[in-house]
Amino acid sequence: MSIADTPATYPIPPLPRGWRMAAVHAGIKRNASREDVTLVASDRPATAAGVYTTNLVFAAPVALDRSRTPGTGFRGVIINSGNANACTGARGLDDAKQMAALAGRELGALGEQMLVLSTGIIGEFLPMATVEKGIKAAAVALSGDERAALMAARGMMTTDTRPKMAGGTFTADGVACTVFGMAKGAAMIGPKLATMLGVVVTDAAIDPADAQRLLAAAAEETFNCVSVDGHMSTNDTVLLLANGAAGGPQLRGADLEAFGRTLHAVCEFLAREMADDGEGATHVMRIEVTGAASRDAARQIARTIADSPLVKTAVHGADPNWGRIVSAAGYSGITLDPTQVLLRVNGTLLFEAGSPVPFVADAVSDSIKNHRETLIELVVGGGPGRIRFFSSDLTADYVHLNADYHT
Amino acid sequence: MSIADTPATYPIPPLPRGWRMAAVHAGIKRNASREDVTLVASDRPATAAGVYTTNLVFAAPVALDRSRTPGTGFRGVIINSGNANACTGARGLDDAKQMAALAGRELGALGEQMLVLSTGIIGEFLPMATVEKGIKAAAVALSGDERAALMAARGMMTTDTRPKMAGGTFTADGVACTVFGMAKGAAMIGPKLATMLGVVVTDAAIDPADAQRLLAAAAEETFNCVSVDGHMSTNDTVLLLANGAAGGPQLRGADLEAFGRTLHAVCEFLAREMADDGEGATHVMRIEVTGAASRDAARQIARTIADSPLVKTAVHGADPNWGRIVSAAGYSGITLDPTQVLLRVNGTLLFEAGSPVPFVADAVSDSIKNHRETLIELVVGGGPGRIRFFSSDLTADYVHLNADYHT
Repeated sequence: MSIADTPATYPIPPLPRGWRMAAVHAGIKRNASREDVTLVASDRPATAAGVYTTNLVFAAPVALDRSRTPGTGFRGVIINSGNANACTGARGLDDAKQMAALAGRELGALGEQMLVLSTGIIGEFLPMATVEKGIKAAAVALSGDERAALMAARGMMTTDTRPKMAGGTFTADGVACTVFGMAKGAAMIGPKLATMLGVVVTDAAIDPADAQRLLAAAAEETFNCVSVDGHMSTNDTVLLLANGAAGGPQLRGADLEAFGRTLHAVCEFLAREMADDGEGATHVMRIEVTGAASRDAARQIARTIADSPLVKTAVHGADPNWGRIVSAAGYSGITLDPTQVLLRVNGTLLFEAGSPVPFVADAVSDSIKNHRETLIELVVGGGPGRIRFFSSDLTADYVHLNADYHT
Repeated sequence: MSIADTPATYPIPPLPRGWRMAAVHAGIKRNASREDVTLVASDRPATAAGVYTTNLVFAAPVALDRSRTPGTGFRGVIINSGNANACTGARGLDDAKQMAALAGRELGALGEQMLVLSTGIIGEFLPMATVEKGIKAAAVALSGDERAALMAARGMMTTDTRPKMAGGTFTADGVACTVFGMAKGAAMIGPKLATMLGVVVTDAAIDPADAQRLLAAAAEETFNCVSVDGHMSTNDTVLLLANGAAGGPQLRGADLEAFGRTLHAVCEFLAREMADDGEGATHVMRIEVTGAASRDAARQIARTIADSPLVKTAVHGADPNWGRIVSAAGYSGITLDPTQVLLRVNGTLLFEAGSPVPFVADAVSDSIKNHRETLIELVVGGGPGRIRFFSSDLTADYVHLNADYHT
């Protein structure tokens, strides 16, 4: 098995102390060069928190993890790709529990001390003999080195074109602590190749309630501000595990805040990576809405722009078609006064006070064409609500990938 | 100019008595074989009603018509394509009023007796000299024959691939009355090539309040149940004009109901045509949601399925990927219990009681592949709310059309 075909595009961040990982190809995916079982293990009990899809049709591992977090005493996460274990009823929930039990046994822990993530095809039962084989192989391969981290990030992938990792450090009470995060992409924000998955581990010691609060806050400003196709999956999950192996006391006050900032940065990097690696994407769209009545209002406007196929295709075509952006804001459901709206694309003013502004279309088109990121800045009034939202453009490749995948 | 290149795909319905139409190429569109100014004229004052986009960013003609309907004394509608007269501020509103005045003068009427529709590029001022030339030429060409009706339907088009017309008759108090409708497509449900436009004319005599009520009801069940890309335009308008030329009394009771049924059928035909002619579409999706708590709940579920790029691409790929449909229902924002959900695609049961049902995937795939229409039937519970919703699939051609249009 070669890892050269999907290299990380940036330095692999180090794993925090007390954490080991491994990923193997067990056979859930047909392609033998694609890892499909990933084990994340802590050498001591860890605090865990989680945020989950709000889709009412949610997968078995979501049901399991949601019932267990926030909490303490966790020894790791067992992850499979290639099968989402979603829409699989009672048998699916039994399978998820069995995955936890099998992985726990390898770590000398109880099933209840494990969390479970699945991503891939919806509506098919997990091949449990294959999963079990993979868990045993992964347990043998556990390692704390950077290759293990890269393999683990690869092992979560479905149609991602590259693994996504982020790291950071902070100092708490004089002790250096490390945060490592990995995710698979919003490109699969769909029920079929479900899902957006994220795992963040740290060697800091954190109270479960604090972990839950900080994870929810970070996700709100990062993963909840990304959309590739607006299709929310059955499996979306982000887990945070903190094992305290750095040796410091449980984080409080300024230390907790320092961790929160690092967590936020890790999640933000991963979120942007997901938009950037959206299926078929040639551009990542950074949409900054300001002046809304509230943050939620800003988000709804940004999401409407992000999900408009006409905006997405305009960016793909390097077309400074401001009318598509302004009118998307107009139908977002949020009240706004068009005469108060101002729009810039890649820094050039295109629309102000309800009227178009003369601009050099070729120059703006070139700036879109020549940069991977397109910046859309929309001022919608004088309110305090603002948000930064990431999305990707819509290309013929997205259509091909999703029209041709299953059959 | 040849009309052979975009023929009607069905017999052209006759115009009601007292109505004449014409369309000419004035030069708003560059392509000289494309009509861009259309005049619809009644030989006597008519009742008019209108339904309009709810986009807060709306075009000048929307502002004008909304202020004038429902009402009486109207002599016709002046329509241009190639320019939406949207985001054009006070000058745009003046231009719309001037269009009405110019058209009215040709008919011996006041500007206030005319309604105005525009569709095309957003954010550019109308070339009023060209528009005036077109209005004069159209007035000379006015005719009540079927070629005039076809030309008028063509004159509204932007990226529609074919004109869309529908007709019907009913008897009121022993008098035969005729309804004629034409529309341009939801393919342009965007700010750039705005918009969905519809004009329905009849020779029945109808009170303005009745006309408004029946038009709103028909639109609610037809045009409001269509989505191509979910992007609501700045110009969406449907007008109903009734001139009483058939000679009967103002419709009441059962006669009014008979008209309402005919109006509904005309609007439904046009709505389905718009979905069928969606940009790049290879399939029209008929989504029937039943068992919801209310009609609005059913609509929200249907619209979420209709607008999911993953569902649209699955249909394009003839992929019976039920997970995409069920999970779209799951994130629509409407509460539902997955164990109560049942899904059929083209008549084959795929999902029931929270679990997949064994089915022959190739047979369902073939049924999608071999039919222009894909029927998605979703039962979401035991409630009374139901809706039928039309949409189109998402293809690489849609991306090409919208990425490459402007620049």
